[in-house]
Amino acid sequence: MEVKKDYLARPRAIKDVKPKFRNFPMVPRVVFGSGCFDQLGDILMAKRKHSDAPFIFLVDDVFEGTELTSRIPRIFNDQLIFISADQEPTTKQVDVLVKRIEKDFDDLPSGIVGIGGGTLLDLSKAVAILLTNNGSASRYQGWDLVLKPALYHVGIPTISGTGAEVSRTTVLLGPEKKLGINSDYTTFDQVLLDPDLTKGVERAQWFYTGMDCFIHCIESLQGTFLNAFSQSYGEKALELCKEVFLEELNPKESRDKLMMASWHGGMSIAYSQVGVAHAMSYGLGFLLGVRHGIGNCLVFKHLNEFYPEGVALFDRMLEKHEIELPTGICANLDENELDTMISVAMGMVPLWENALGSDWRNVITPEKLACIYRKI
Amino acid sequence: MEVKKDYLARPRAIKDVKPKFRNFPMVPRVVFGSGCFDQLGDILMAKRKHSDAPFIFLVDDVFEGTELTSRIPRIFNDQLIFISADQEPTTKQVDVLVKRIEKDFDDLPSGIVGIGGGTLLDLSKAVAILLTNNGSASRYQGWDLVLKPALYHVGIPTISGTGAEVSRTTVLLGPEKKLGINSDYTTFDQVLLDPDLTKGVERAQWFYTGMDCFIHCIESLQGTFLNAFSQSYGEKALELCKEVFLEELNPKESRDKLMMASWHGGMSIAYSQVGVAHAMSYGLGFLLGVRHGIGNCLVFKHLNEFYPEGVALFDRMLEKHEIELPTGICANLDENELDTMISVAMGMVPLWENALGSDWRNVITPEKLACIYRKI
Repeated sequence: MEVKKDYLARPRAIKDVKPKFRNFPMVPRVVFGSGCFDQLGDILMAKRKHSDAPFIFLVDDVFEGTELTSRIPRIFNDQLIFISADQEPTTKQVDVLVKRIEKDFDDLPSGIVGIGGGTLLDLSKAVAILLTNNGSASRYQGWDLVLKPALYHVGIPTISGTGAEVSRTTVLLGPEKKLGINSDYTTFDQVLLDPDLTKGVERAQWFYTGMDCFIHCIESLQGTFLNAFSQSYGEKALELCKEVFLEELNPKESRDKLMMASWHGGMSIAYSQVGVAHAMSYGLGFLLGVRHGIGNCLVFKHLNEFYPEGVALFDRMLEKHEIELPTGICANLDENELDTMISVAMGMVPLWENALGSDWRNVITPEKLACIYRKI
Repeated sequence: MEVKKDYLARPRAIKDVKPKFRNFPMVPRVVFGSGCFDQLGDILMAKRKHSDAPFIFLVDDVFEGTELTSRIPRIFNDQLIFISADQEPTTKQVDVLVKRIEKDFDDLPSGIVGIGGGTLLDLSKAVAILLTNNGSASRYQGWDLVLKPALYHVGIPTISGTGAEVSRTTVLLGPEKKLGINSDYTTFDQVLLDPDLTKGVERAQWFYTGMDCFIHCIESLQGTFLNAFSQSYGEKALELCKEVFLEELNPKESRDKLMMASWHGGMSIAYSQVGVAHAMSYGLGFLLGVRHGIGNCLVFKHLNEFYPEGVALFDRMLEKHEIELPTGICANLDENELDTMISVAMGMVPLWENALGSDWRNVITPEKLACIYRKI
C-alpha cells in the first residue's frame, strides 16, 4: 500500500497547529439543560429568513422512527435527512448533500441543524460551509481556506466526548487526504446541550467516545504546547472524565458531567495539541479504517512509557466498565503494511513535537512503533 | 435615608435571574497569551469600517502616560479617552460619553475598546449599546430591554476577578437605581486576555478583585440554582483561586491562572446566582458607597454560618497575603441607616433564594442581618 503524499504532509506546517496566540472562535450561543431540546423550535424561529428558506436537519439514522425525531420542530418546507454514522464522513458525502439541497430548494436554506455524534456534527459544519462557498468540500481541507461565512448552523450532540460541538474543524475523508476544514467559519453558531439526548447510547460506544475526551486531555495536558487557557479547560475535562468513569454517579449526573467534559475538552484544543495516541491511531485509521474513538483506546493501552498515570487510570476505567478491547488487530499485517502505518504515524510531526518536544526523533523510531503496533 | 423603590425592586422577578435554560451568549472571539495585546492592531484592522469610522479606546486613567498607552494601536482619527475607575460607573457617565462621541464624529465609530477593570469594561459595553440604541442608558437597565445589536466592542481586562469580560451585563448606577443592562447584546464581541497587563496591579486591589471571583464561586457552587454547566466552570474557577491565593506560584503562573479564574467564574454565572455576601454587600454599597470587591470581603468574613469552608479558606488567604480589612465601617450608623441597609439586602430575593432556598425568610431576619452588619 502506498502512502499518499498529501496525507503525510497533513500537519507538517507547525505554525498552523501551534499558533501562539490564536484568536479563537467560541460558539456564540449555547443552551444547556435536560430537556432543552424542546427550545429548538423557538431558537430556530428567530433565524428563519422566510417561509421558503427551510431548515435542513441532518440526523443520525439511529434516531429514525424514534421519539426524538418526532420532537424535531419542522415547519414549512423544512427537510429531515437521516444519515448513517457507520462510516467516517467524507468530502463526497458533503458534496452530494449540498447538491441535493441546492436542487431541492430555490432559496438558500435558513440553516443546517446537525443532530448526532461527531460524524453528524462534522457533516453539518461542512454542509453549512459548502452552501456558501463554491466547489467541492475537498477544496477547503486545510487551514483557513474558507473565505465566506458559513450558513447559520446548529450543533446538537447526542453522544459525549468528541468535542466536535465546540471545535473549529470538521474532519473529512477526501479523495486524497483525511483532513479537517479548519476555519473560523467552521464553528457552530449555536449549540444545544441536552444531556437527556445521550440516554440511549450503547455502552461500548459511550465508553469509546468518552475516552476520546479522556485521551485527548491526557495528551494535551502532558504536551509541550500547553498554556494556561487550554490547561484550565483540559484539567476540568479530565476531572469530569474521572468522575464519570471511576466514581459512582447517578445516571443523570453522569450524563451531565460527560457532556460538560466533552465541551471543556473541546475548548482545551484552542491552544493545545494531541499526542502519541492520536498519531498512532491515525496509522490504524488510515490502513485499517479503525474508527477514531476505539482506535485511540487500542493504542493508548500500550503507551505506558509515555503516559504512565493516564494509562493506569485508563486500565481502571476499562476494568470498572468491563470493556474488552478487541485484540489481534495488527496480527496479520505484513511488513509493508506495518511500514505504511508507521509512516503515517511518524508523519504527524506536530503531535510528536507536542508529546515529546522538538527532538522527538531521538525517542521515536520505526522499530519502536512497530513494537507497539504488534501488540495491538 | 430613604430606600428608593426601584432599587429594592431590582431582582425581584425571579424568572429573569433564574432562567432554567438560558440561551447563553458567549464571547465569540477570545485570544489569550502573554503579550497578545500587541495583536490588537490586527484584530481591529479587520473591523474598521472606513478611515472616518474611528475606534474609541476607553482606558483606565491609571495608564495615562504609561507604556501600555503607547502600545494602543491608534490610527486615522481614533480617539483615546482616559476614565477614572475611582467611582462605580453611572448611566450619566455613559450618556455623556455617547454624546461626546456623537458630537466628535460624523460617522458611527468602528467600535469601542475598553481597557481596564470592571468599571472600564462595563462602561465600554454600555457605550457600545447606547451608540446604536436611542435615549439614556438608564432606559435599558433591566433584563433584555436592548433591542438593537450594540456597536462592535472589545474588552481587555487589566485586573482579574470581576468576570465582566465574559458576562452579559453591565452594572450601572442610574438616577433611580443601580442595575445592570442585562442583554444578549451586552456581551463583548472580542476579548483579549493578556495576563501581562495585570503586572502593575496594586496588592490590595489585586486581592479584593480576586476575592470577587472567589466569593462568587463559593456562593454559586453552594447555591440551589446550580446546574452541571455552571458547576463545572465554578469549580474550575474556585480551584484556580485556591492555587493563586494559597499555593506558591511564580508570578507569571499566578497572573495566568487568576485571569482564567475570572474567565471561568464569569462563565459560571450562565446558570447560577450569587448569595448572602453579595446581597449584604449591596446594602453596604448603597448606603456607604463601599465598592464591590472590598464590600464582598467585608461581609464574607462574617458568614461562617452560611459558608463555613469558604470562610475558612478566605481567612487563610487574608493571613497569607497579610491583608488587613478595614474595621468599624458600620460602627457609627444609626438605627435608620442600619434599617436601610437591611432593607436593601433583604430586597435581593433571588440571591437569598439561591443561597437558602425558597423558605429563606425562616433563616434571615432583620435582627440577624443587623447583628452581622454591626460586626463590620
